[in-house]
Amino acid sequence: MRAYDIIYKKREGKSLTRAELEFLITGYVKEEIPDYQISAWAMAVFFQGMDAQETADLTMLMAESGDMIDLSPITGTKVDKHSTGGVGDTTTLVLAPLVAAAGLPVAKMSGRGLGHTGGTIDKLESIPDFNTSLSEDKFFDNVNQHGLAVVGQTGNLTPADKKLYALRDVTATVESIPLIASSIMSKKIAGGADAIVLDVKTGNGAFMKDKSSARKLAQAMVNIGKQTGRKTAAYLTDMNQPLGKAVGNALEVKEAITTLRGDGPADLTELCIELGAGMLKLADKVTELKAGKKLLREKLNSGAALAKLKEMITAQGGNPAVVEDLTLLPTAENSLEITAAKSGYINEIEAIEVGLAAMLLGAGRENKDSQIDLAVGLELKKKIGDQVKKGESLAVIYYNSAQNLAEAKAKLEQSFTISSDKPASNKLIYEIIK
Amino acid sequence: MRAYDIIYKKREGKSLTRAELEFLITGYVKEEIPDYQISAWAMAVFFQGMDAQETADLTMLMAESGDMIDLSPITGTKVDKHSTGGVGDTTTLVLAPLVAAAGLPVAKMSGRGLGHTGGTIDKLESIPDFNTSLSEDKFFDNVNQHGLAVVGQTGNLTPADKKLYALRDVTATVESIPLIASSIMSKKIAGGADAIVLDVKTGNGAFMKDKSSARKLAQAMVNIGKQTGRKTAAYLTDMNQPLGKAVGNALEVKEAITTLRGDGPADLTELCIELGAGMLKLADKVTELKAGKKLLREKLNSGAALAKLKEMITAQGGNPAVVEDLTLLPTAENSLEITAAKSGYINEIEAIEVGLAAMLLGAGRENKDSQIDLAVGLELKKKIGDQVKKGESLAVIYYNSAQNLAEAKAKLEQSFTISSDKPASNKLIYEIIK
Repeated sequence: MRAYDIIYKKREGKSLTRAELEFLITGYVKEEIPDYQISAWAMAVFFQGMDAQETADLTMLMAESGDMIDLSPITGTKVDKHSTGGVGDTTTLVLAPLVAAAGLPVAKMSGRGLGHTGGTIDKLESIPDFNTSLSEDKFFDNVNQHGLAVVGQTGNLTPADKKLYALRDVTATVESIPLIASSIMSKKIAGGADAIVLDVKTGNGAFMKDKSSARKLAQAMVNIGKQTGRKTAAYLTDMNQPLGKAVGNALEVKEAITTLRGDGPADLTELCIELGAGMLKLADKVTELKAGKKLLREKLNSGAALAKLKEMITAQGGNPAVVEDLTLLPTAENSLEITAAKSGYINEIEAIEVGLAAMLLGAGRENKDSQIDLAVGLELKKKIGDQVKKGESLAVIYYNSAQNLAEAKAKLEQSFTISSDKPASNKLIYEIIK
Repeated sequence: MRAYDIIYKKREGKSLTRAELEFLITGYVKEEIPDYQISAWAMAVFFQGMDAQETADLTMLMAESGDMIDLSPITGTKVDKHSTGGVGDTTTLVLAPLVAAAGLPVAKMSGRGLGHTGGTIDKLESIPDFNTSLSEDKFFDNVNQHGLAVVGQTGNLTPADKKLYALRDVTATVESIPLIASSIMSKKIAGGADAIVLDVKTGNGAFMKDKSSARKLAQAMVNIGKQTGRKTAAYLTDMNQPLGKAVGNALEVKEAITTLRGDGPADLTELCIELGAGMLKLADKVTELKAGKKLLREKLNSGAALAKLKEMITAQGGNPAVVEDLTLLPTAENSLEITAAKSGYINEIEAIEVGLAAMLLGAGRENKDSQIDLAVGLELKKKIGDQVKKGESLAVIYYNSAQNLAEAKAKLEQSFTISSDKPASNKLIYEIIK
């Protein structure tokens, strides 16, 4: 077998066999096949695509290229959730205790990641003394005892995906649906999930701007799930404005607590209920989504979900008092209000600009070595469809350093469009693909 | 400027500016841009193409990446000829003395190359004592004094093309028309040609199997000529059977001499007259192709062309007696006849299989270090349209070692198709593009 012939075959639009993909991927990891052949292949895949079988084969090859986490010490069906990323996405912090309160074990390994804010692990570390590095035994024990644990990724997970992604990132071959789908799913499968709920975001703040591409990505991932025997459901959700109101690490933890108290933003609450019901259904905890949503609303209203978060914080060494007293979380020294230049209705919020504003304040990482400021970020006071009067507050910036403040303020101001007519209301969930 | 953005732009089907191509090509030669970005770009070019301006810009950037030969010490318009390669292509050995006899200076730098037989330089070296390594001064002097000289390539010509071609060769990105066109034309331009006649072959023995791709390649090269101020004409010619009858190094020199004596195969003779007329016209030696063809036929029939070959051999230190006595050229020890299995008409000759048979006998190079046997090869006794009786000779194999003989014989036998009906006659020249 020669890498040349495999590249040629893909270039001509033919499907590769598992053996051909294995030759390519294992050869690449072993450094027997050079970067320049893999990047040419990736560009050929960009143009010619991959069929369902190829995509599933690539996924499993990448999943099996490193450690495969065995979650069998944990009782019950392990359902993982993945979001394709957006601005102000606080779902995991709400969803994990919510479904755990409903009896679904949550064994979540999460990343730090590059982005407008940190990853779930960064956010959790804004809780004083919270420990995200548990031993494997302790991790399993905590899930079995308390129903949930959230820890940082350890071990050598999907090295083939890491290597391939780094190459795609510098060769303009990231934007290929089968390559994105196999990258995401390989990590979930290596992470030991029995079933997977996917939150595929679409809109101006999402990686997939248009609904049709997002739908294709969702379908590709659901197909991988089918081919590899992992029950998978994908939710196509709106990211034409930030989710919830907070963008920032500690700010999102505060918002998650508020939401678990029952006082959170409507969109964040609804999305967590919907995704959570999807998780319960995949795990056969409920037979209908409707019953799942009802159960989760009860857990939210009764305070059981908030109690579950408190239990997890305690079990992971953090200060559980934060759930009653938000001032125990990091707080920025200064704040600055953004006000409406005219009266009307909020017609648009460019989510990506809001995210960049948070990034400028220091809430996110530009590269692996960037230091995050957990306290900074911003809070939207208005969302699409809300009425606003001239001079009224649109958002508040929380900052420690004034270094990029002017630029962040300008970005945030520009992200709002105010119109005289009330816009048609945005759907939050467009479609469920399974 | 970033290589990533340039790859992305091409991937999205946009045209690159000269500055962008320069960044890419000079960065690549200086090893500031890695192979894996260039191969991804080349694959994007495979799918998205390049417009006429881009192709011309790339050509000049590659031409200017190394030495640019200055042929100005030679009086008159320097017209170069390039063939895209086929089986049994003996044109240069006939054409150079032919047009030189008609007063066109021929300053030919030629390669050895990989293929079914050696390159022009290998072939010429089968003439005893013939020297293909002249100093630049001697080369110019010979052309000015005798009207022609053929030498091996020296200097650092088109290093960017060499590097890019080597990468394309292992990443399945060779078959891109703008990349092929710019590769060929960059070498001709760096070689100092004022005008260029291109022999673009199409058919089962050619790189471009189908006429439509060959036409596109021809058009792309003529466009480059226009954009870069080099008068260029491209001939679309048939390669559905070997050109002439001889395939092998010394065998082709013999055939060239026979042709210059006026006794050569009809197709080889006709092609040389046609291409030669094209060269005379580009150099304004004649105003009409018809007049050029008439002049060249006179030079052939009068023996002036053969005398010119003899003059060149003498001037380059070779034994001029070869033009009268072909036995002075290397001759293989053994021969083997291939005969017709049935009576009928020759309907097809798979040129590529004939070429591979010659290669198996040792006439060509598989890699840079292969040793060529100048004496071996084969001679076709019949060509398409010829009538043949069962048991009659189809071809003769000339060999020194019996090592691959059986395989070569089988290939040669399989390359002939005999039918009961006479096939429609093959056109030799399909089209002239200028």
